[in-house]
Amino acid sequence: MPTLSVFLDVPLAQKLEGSLLKTYKQDNCPNKMFLAYKVCMSNKGQPWVSSVVRKTRLQIAQDPSLNYEYMPVMGMKSFIQASLKLLFGRHNQVIVENRVGGVHTVGDNGAFQLGAQFLKIWRQDSQAVYIISSRKEPHGLVFQDMGFKVSEYSFWDPKKLRVDPNVLLNVVEQAPHGCIFVIGNTGDCKLTQSQWARLMASMKRKQIFPFFDIPYQGLSTGDLEEDTNFLQYFVSQGFEFFCSQSLSKTFGIYDEGVGILVVVALNNQLLLCVLSQLMTLTRALWLNSPSRGARIITSILCNPALQGEWKHSLKGLVEDIMLTKEKVKEKLRLLGTPGSWDHITDQSGPHSYLGLNSEQVEYLVKEKHIYIPKDGQINFTCINACNIDYITQSINEAVLSIKGSQ
Amino acid sequence: MPTLSVFLDVPLAQKLEGSLLKTYKQDNCPNKMFLAYKVCMSNKGQPWVSSVVRKTRLQIAQDPSLNYEYMPVMGMKSFIQASLKLLFGRHNQVIVENRVGGVHTVGDNGAFQLGAQFLKIWRQDSQAVYIISSRKEPHGLVFQDMGFKVSEYSFWDPKKLRVDPNVLLNVVEQAPHGCIFVIGNTGDCKLTQSQWARLMASMKRKQIFPFFDIPYQGLSTGDLEEDTNFLQYFVSQGFEFFCSQSLSKTFGIYDEGVGILVVVALNNQLLLCVLSQLMTLTRALWLNSPSRGARIITSILCNPALQGEWKHSLKGLVEDIMLTKEKVKEKLRLLGTPGSWDHITDQSGPHSYLGLNSEQVEYLVKEKHIYIPKDGQINFTCINACNIDYITQSINEAVLSIKGSQ
Repeated sequence: MPTLSVFLDVPLAQKLEGSLLKTYKQDNCPNKMFLAYKVCMSNKGQPWVSSVVRKTRLQIAQDPSLNYEYMPVMGMKSFIQASLKLLFGRHNQVIVENRVGGVHTVGDNGAFQLGAQFLKIWRQDSQAVYIISSRKEPHGLVFQDMGFKVSEYSFWDPKKLRVDPNVLLNVVEQAPHGCIFVIGNTGDCKLTQSQWARLMASMKRKQIFPFFDIPYQGLSTGDLEEDTNFLQYFVSQGFEFFCSQSLSKTFGIYDEGVGILVVVALNNQLLLCVLSQLMTLTRALWLNSPSRGARIITSILCNPALQGEWKHSLKGLVEDIMLTKEKVKEKLRLLGTPGSWDHITDQSGPHSYLGLNSEQVEYLVKEKHIYIPKDGQINFTCINACNIDYITQSINEAVLSIKGSQ
Repeated sequence: MPTLSVFLDVPLAQKLEGSLLKTYKQDNCPNKMFLAYKVCMSNKGQPWVSSVVRKTRLQIAQDPSLNYEYMPVMGMKSFIQASLKLLFGRHNQVIVENRVGGVHTVGDNGAFQLGAQFLKIWRQDSQAVYIISSRKEPHGLVFQDMGFKVSEYSFWDPKKLRVDPNVLLNVVEQAPHGCIFVIGNTGDCKLTQSQWARLMASMKRKQIFPFFDIPYQGLSTGDLEEDTNFLQYFVSQGFEFFCSQSLSKTFGIYDEGVGILVVVALNNQLLLCVLSQLMTLTRALWLNSPSRGARIITSILCNPALQGEWKHSLKGLVEDIMLTKEKVKEKLRLLGTPGSWDHITDQSGPHSYLGLNSEQVEYLVKEKHIYIPKDGQINFTCINACNIDYITQSINEAVLSIKGSQ
């Protein structure tokens, strides 16, 4: 009997991302290169892994005392505690007052999925979300799929080639009352004390709920504490917030995606209520999150020697990033490429804007087989001794061929 | 400035499960025991781990050629392929015709979460779900939380102390048109050929969508193929279906919860559409599922010697379960406990009904500190040489104190 398919009305889903990578993979040019990997790359063009990770992996595999039982629904307790200490510092007010907690989440989007589900249920009157453009995909889509109205913003001023704190202030001031504001790495957005005060006053007045996004603590400045200092402002002003704390990237265990949905509440009682609701959601979402990544990270964070070694490796990575940026700038200067390239070294972290316009980016992709996202934000760890000359010469060509719009 | 909490209206969530385990943990009696663990226990009262797993873990940790890059959004390809071959057999029609596929899922509930999200969007006219009572929690709750109307059913006839295929047939015949039917382990539900034909005819006529639940292939009969033979009936009758294939339990890697949402469609084109939609959902749900569990399982399944060792260990576990059941029955017979206890050995797999009524169960919990769920379904791997005498004597006491209702 011929049957009609149950799936007859299901169309092929539009590919949302990865099309640049796909085009790159299909390119047969031997000189092709991809400068938009999510992960940090080592000097040898391999995904960066902290030296301490391999050792810890082996130790765990050889440990006869470990059992492989289910973890609690909330995840690995010691992992959550160690991660919160890393984020806030051991003696932070929220830790001492027992009003910060977390749920162990899965993958890169788990914390956003969980947080968004909670906000969908418990903040029904505020279904507008603001998110920085570069994180619209994948995190913004999580909110969008759930029916939130998602708006994008950007700190980066492509004309002035710099990050502009006023953009952030203006976006907040124009945002609707009670919206959710996803705030990512503010490292390059050097707000003055009075700008911070103005930002937080606006957010308080409009009851904007902050949802922080910490994808790689320590990779901006090389200093773990400095990178998350801005959270202290919010804590001290009595904000309640969520934070997606991702930990896989700073250890180099990309295939064990693991993180925390961090909750800061005004007091312990409120915190426990929120965590209990999150537990119910977690149970439905995955029930028993995989432990491997959490175990590696916890082993490192809870051992001072290993933690020291990890921090050292992280610092080395950040120094490499800064050095690469310096070299790119210097080479462009030697080539006499028009324009100031200070904006390259003014930005921190692996992902920074080259400061090219879309035609120049297109030139690099089409003519030079250098794959770069449309906004020109690249991963500087993809540049190494083998490809830096080709890349800087190509940028020079692109700039000379297509004059900037200013 | 004192602030009102954002979380003011969030109540403490009701604890949904684990209350039996919690009571057990709070019990100070030295003789207390818990017979409802989800995982299989070894003779020594530890979670069972296949002997081949430890070796494989170590091999993976020592492998210098492995990188730790992000996996594709759909998960580890080799893992999905190996798992599908395990489920259907290498030469199955759906594999040959390229119309079966899968998505690598996370934890115990990941496949249900993903499948339910898909069905919520793409089968809006069929939002009723039938699920076997013992799986209502946790899987049924996933559907319920998403707004499906969830109904429970049970094969087990507590009067006749046996599994009754007619119950399944009746439930299907009374179920609404187009509903979703979650079908778990049918090992004990010995349908005749004509009963299978009747069941599938009903399901076809009513356009009922089967969502199979394979939590531990091989643990019913000790034979991997025999355990999933019933899927062939559905394939041969041209059904399209989903299947949650969980793999952690049969390898003993409970803390690396991993599985597959299996999709069978009428042809490859339909399959690709469904998989593309699932990919979009997966990206929002977790994005980059952890690889560890999948890597261990794939290493074992793709190596004939390791696979043989794993199958052998699984068979050993099933033999232990059968032996324990025989011993329990024999001891109850020697004690002269009223009633036939054949139903214990008639059931297969680790989780089977003791055949006690709720007062008898309560007697065991309250008087004997033996923690058993209300329906009397226990995990027989929790019984070992150290506790079998206490357990059987207590069952005897419970039965003598409280006569059964028949």
